[in-house]
Amino acid sequence: MDIQELISKQAIETESRIIMLVLDGLGGLPVGPQFKTELEMAKKPNLDKLAREGALGLADPVARGITPGSGPGHLGLFGYDPVKFLIGRGVLEALGIDFPLKPGDVAIRLNLCTVDDKGMVTDRRAGRIATEANAQLCEKIKAKVKISGAEYFLEPVKEHRAVLVFRARGLGDKINDSDPQVAGKEPLLMKGEDEGSRKTVKLVDEFLAQAKPILKEEKPANMMLFRGFACFSKYPQFNEIYKLKACAIAQYPMYRGLARLVGMEVVNVGPEMDDLFSALKENWAKYNFFFVHIKKTDSAGEDGDWARKVEVIQSVDKQIPKALKLKPEVLVITGDHSTPSRLKAHSWHPVPVLLWSENIRPDLAKEFGERACSQGGLGRFKMKYLMGLAMANALKLDKFGA
Amino acid sequence: MDIQELISKQAIETESRIIMLVLDGLGGLPVGPQFKTELEMAKKPNLDKLAREGALGLADPVARGITPGSGPGHLGLFGYDPVKFLIGRGVLEALGIDFPLKPGDVAIRLNLCTVDDKGMVTDRRAGRIATEANAQLCEKIKAKVKISGAEYFLEPVKEHRAVLVFRARGLGDKINDSDPQVAGKEPLLMKGEDEGSRKTVKLVDEFLAQAKPILKEEKPANMMLFRGFACFSKYPQFNEIYKLKACAIAQYPMYRGLARLVGMEVVNVGPEMDDLFSALKENWAKYNFFFVHIKKTDSAGEDGDWARKVEVIQSVDKQIPKALKLKPEVLVITGDHSTPSRLKAHSWHPVPVLLWSENIRPDLAKEFGERACSQGGLGRFKMKYLMGLAMANALKLDKFGA
Repeated sequence: MDIQELISKQAIETESRIIMLVLDGLGGLPVGPQFKTELEMAKKPNLDKLAREGALGLADPVARGITPGSGPGHLGLFGYDPVKFLIGRGVLEALGIDFPLKPGDVAIRLNLCTVDDKGMVTDRRAGRIATEANAQLCEKIKAKVKISGAEYFLEPVKEHRAVLVFRARGLGDKINDSDPQVAGKEPLLMKGEDEGSRKTVKLVDEFLAQAKPILKEEKPANMMLFRGFACFSKYPQFNEIYKLKACAIAQYPMYRGLARLVGMEVVNVGPEMDDLFSALKENWAKYNFFFVHIKKTDSAGEDGDWARKVEVIQSVDKQIPKALKLKPEVLVITGDHSTPSRLKAHSWHPVPVLLWSENIRPDLAKEFGERACSQGGLGRFKMKYLMGLAMANALKLDKFGA
Repeated sequence: MDIQELISKQAIETESRIIMLVLDGLGGLPVGPQFKTELEMAKKPNLDKLAREGALGLADPVARGITPGSGPGHLGLFGYDPVKFLIGRGVLEALGIDFPLKPGDVAIRLNLCTVDDKGMVTDRRAGRIATEANAQLCEKIKAKVKISGAEYFLEPVKEHRAVLVFRARGLGDKINDSDPQVAGKEPLLMKGEDEGSRKTVKLVDEFLAQAKPILKEEKPANMMLFRGFACFSKYPQFNEIYKLKACAIAQYPMYRGLARLVGMEVVNVGPEMDDLFSALKENWAKYNFFFVHIKKTDSAGEDGDWARKVEVIQSVDKQIPKALKLKPEVLVITGDHSTPSRLKAHSWHPVPVLLWSENIRPDLAKEFGERACSQGGLGRFKMKYLMGLAMANALKLDKFGA
């Protein structure tokens, strides 16, 4: 039995509240003369106090050595085995623009591209055209392309990227990308591996046949490539599994989408750090689980900006008293994966975890940091176990067996 | 999905190089007034420096409490689940003499023994006859015994041991040993559990029928016992799984055989410690993964010679600068299992692991030793995860999910 299944059988409904504060890409690597990670370097009196009162550990989002994307990273946080519950690329792209997918929808990443007069791809990204031009082009296509036998949705994303969604019964997603991956080649023929997938291919072919004459007049985006076909199926619902009323406080569409995917309610929130914690207060009475997502730690890491990541952590620290004032029974502070600014990318390094609650067995930690976490009382575990720890500390899990 | 399967999907080909330096039976137990293990006692400035720069951990080759043989130990190192990929005794014996098994071969351990004139076994090991006498006897048998319907190979091993291999289509290995386990009994009748196995039994019976008249004249080895029937099937290939060009630098046949089993190229190497590291240098340009095997730590442990094991570790330490001079991206130093000299045998104690790379998250370790490893940043893990950690640090693994 998977841990989530086990937890779901023991879960009981209580009033106690859990805050899961996710600093995206929290984990780092040491740099500089002091050889400290971003988290180790940050001045964070509130987090360090929580570390002394609570317990620390290190979590692997997927498995040792495996670098997770944001999808698997968050699924792990929410207690879903990220290897079992894969999120297809098309679905993730749709989540990223907050598109309300329904079960059975097939979502496809669409890249506008440039072809020459022989039909050879000359630029797979159409010179990364402006998002605005992309949006206008999508509107033009939607106005003219009519597909029978299915609903379709076409939504621009950033630059040359868009999402195409087909909604009909019995569609499949076992279809190769049409993207030839290199310039100088024609777009590939799409082929479906089973009946449902061939049905999807028919729709895409029809869509493309009608879109081509419109695109032909355009420059530089005179063609499109299809990638990451993914059928959306409904996930086991977070609130049902854990008997929680969960609320997501996230500013970026992808994370709002991921929370919605598992059935959390996604609330309105302004763009600033303050806004996240105001939203927490505003929604405090209505829910008993709060997923609060901070993006900027990851962005700074991806930009290789060690100092900025330190600052973001410090600014989160200043908000902690607001969360504590609400008197949560359990406060979890962690990340969905590591994004060391030294690597400018997500990495496989395990993620620092701080678990704070009245009922925690404290360890010897004096501060919140990667090396402190490696000695922490929670030890080393797969991220999917974190929800159980949070639930247990909130006294939301019944005894297993007599 | 098993970790190896997951890794194989994320593996990418790069130039970066990994050295896996295996000190056979590395782990130990503390003895003497200073109460230190062999590894803790050894003066090893180079290894200790690597420990300070890298990260330490403890690995269980099979599972907590399970003492592994050399086969499972090495499979774990190479990232294969040793419980899933069992190596039959006959196959291991054949690997031990570097016999080139082909898929479908059935390999059998053959013991020369002594029977009295009633056919009762009086000595199951024929007085541990000299290897030379064994070899002569094998030659005699091969010259006279002709089997139709299958190729067979008979190779002497040490003392009273030999390997018998049958090569034909559709052979099975579900056959009981003929060894009665105690003196005073007749050799047991061999029975096959399925059709293929009964086919093998027929071949063995025919072989024995022809060999008996030859053996009858011999003293003390006038009979043979058959044990550990094992069909050889091809293993998933290391280079394909990890997209590596792997090379094995090992002096002992069993380890050369194990490396060949997973498809590594086995290079020539002289008998001294120096030779291992010269071979490493010579082959540096041609491969990007190097399995370097040192046997003497295990031999000293098996002999219960604590001081000699300390010396072997010290002599390995002196070679480390040669490995570092080649500028590997990742250097892993570990063992295939523990062989504490206090126990004079393989043991279940977890194996010290040192992982060194630019991309490692360092821990608080100050030296390489069992107790330091138990506090290390890599934590405690199953050995089959080590390959993923090495690959990740060599930047040879793609992100999992978007």
